[in-house]
Amino acid sequence: MESKFQFAKEIIGQAGQFIRKNMTKDLIIEEKTRFDDLVTELDKEVQTLLVDSIHARYPNDCFLAEENNLTADITKGSVWVIDPIDGTVNFVAQGCDFAVMIAYYEEGQGQFGLIYDVMNDVLYSGGGQFDVTANGQKLPPFTDKPLSRSLICVNSSMASQNFMGLANLGCQTLGVRCFGSAGLSICRVLSGRLLAYFSKISPWDYAAGSIMGEKLGYKICDFYGKKPNFETRQEVMFVPKEKLKEIQKYVH
Amino acid sequence: MESKFQFAKEIIGQAGQFIRKNMTKDLIIEEKTRFDDLVTELDKEVQTLLVDSIHARYPNDCFLAEENNLTADITKGSVWVIDPIDGTVNFVAQGCDFAVMIAYYEEGQGQFGLIYDVMNDVLYSGGGQFDVTANGQKLPPFTDKPLSRSLICVNSSMASQNFMGLANLGCQTLGVRCFGSAGLSICRVLSGRLLAYFSKISPWDYAAGSIMGEKLGYKICDFYGKKPNFETRQEVMFVPKEKLKEIQKYVH
Repeated sequence: MESKFQFAKEIIGQAGQFIRKNMTKDLIIEEKTRFDDLVTELDKEVQTLLVDSIHARYPNDCFLAEENNLTADITKGSVWVIDPIDGTVNFVAQGCDFAVMIAYYEEGQGQFGLIYDVMNDVLYSGGGQFDVTANGQKLPPFTDKPLSRSLICVNSSMASQNFMGLANLGCQTLGVRCFGSAGLSICRVLSGRLLAYFSKISPWDYAAGSIMGEKLGYKICDFYGKKPNFETRQEVMFVPKEKLKEIQKYVH
Repeated sequence: MESKFQFAKEIIGQAGQFIRKNMTKDLIIEEKTRFDDLVTELDKEVQTLLVDSIHARYPNDCFLAEENNLTADITKGSVWVIDPIDGTVNFVAQGCDFAVMIAYYEEGQGQFGLIYDVMNDVLYSGGGQFDVTANGQKLPPFTDKPLSRSLICVNSSMASQNFMGLANLGCQTLGVRCFGSAGLSICRVLSGRLLAYFSKISPWDYAAGSIMGEKLGYKICDFYGKKPNFETRQEVMFVPKEKLKEIQKYVH
């Protein structure tokens, strides 16, 4: 597993380098489900680069990924979950605040996760048997703090609809932030900057963070506290386990 | 003016260094108007450091600043507008995403503005007779792009209340972001990452950005398009001048 983890770190670094090198050229931007659901040629190229590298080294492993309809079931065999560019809208509009994400499962057990903040060159990685680190610096487990001294991150349309009472929770905290990247928002929770993250996202958006979070006292769950299905896009929260009950007083 | 601008760059760098050096110690955090309106001893110390430096060099200049009730009228004489830590809540909860801001006026005319992203060590500065730069790199003037390819930044409570139709504007764009720092949000507009910024803020929150923006085709105004009063906390927007009419179709 150690060498597989090292390999994942190498290829995610290469993917970041590839993005930084190619992002300045005129990109073909396509709309997927609607005008604000974007994909670029780079999303697809980066995924191909990652899948091809993994397939060459581990030919029997399977894939669950954002592009190209790769839909392996994470509960069976060795499965890599890939989001080539998380935060594609930020990538297109801002040229920053996006991430590459990789998670690795064996028979449904998360072995390690990686989230690479490409433009800040910060790699969050670990989980399973590995320490969770940010560029090699070990991240501490969650330590309790009151809602009134915490910030949360909420998907902007869920916030504006007060979905399941999220705005009420927001009022108990120092405020609500919104960054537009699931991966980087989860990293802010993992590093203790934000208390929790709420959004409607897909398995490749939360897989890596979920594996790292498990090691530090956080969990990904739906709004009823249940594990998400790792298949469809769902409303989920990434929260400290010991804060779940308190959060569910407001969000239900 | 050149030497005054150089001097401002020096002292804002010193202020940032002072914050980075002292932010890890246990800070005294006080609540101002309510539990989520915070000030720390560092806010006050940084302001004193800046005001003392300026006063020693320019003893006749006056001050409009966030702390300690310094309330000069920017339309008269030589006035420095100072926000020692913009984004104090981020500073306390996240240890990042905050800025030091300085603006300088003579007889109501903005001469230069500076916004220092302390943790990323990026200084945005210029306006008046000076080019607007980010760490010395000249920023280009606004170039038009459609709402449907743009992001906006909205204060989270204004967004959740659909204040003046802001949520309707949000639906025309790629999405809404919220960072919790007026200065850094304005810098994202100045650097072309965000199209516009909407919040309820005070003169020291928008003065520096306003002077830099003037040079690049942006303006700070209230929701009716009028110049803010530079006295009280007001709902304002920081927008490209040539987009104001289009934005006001949704925000009114």
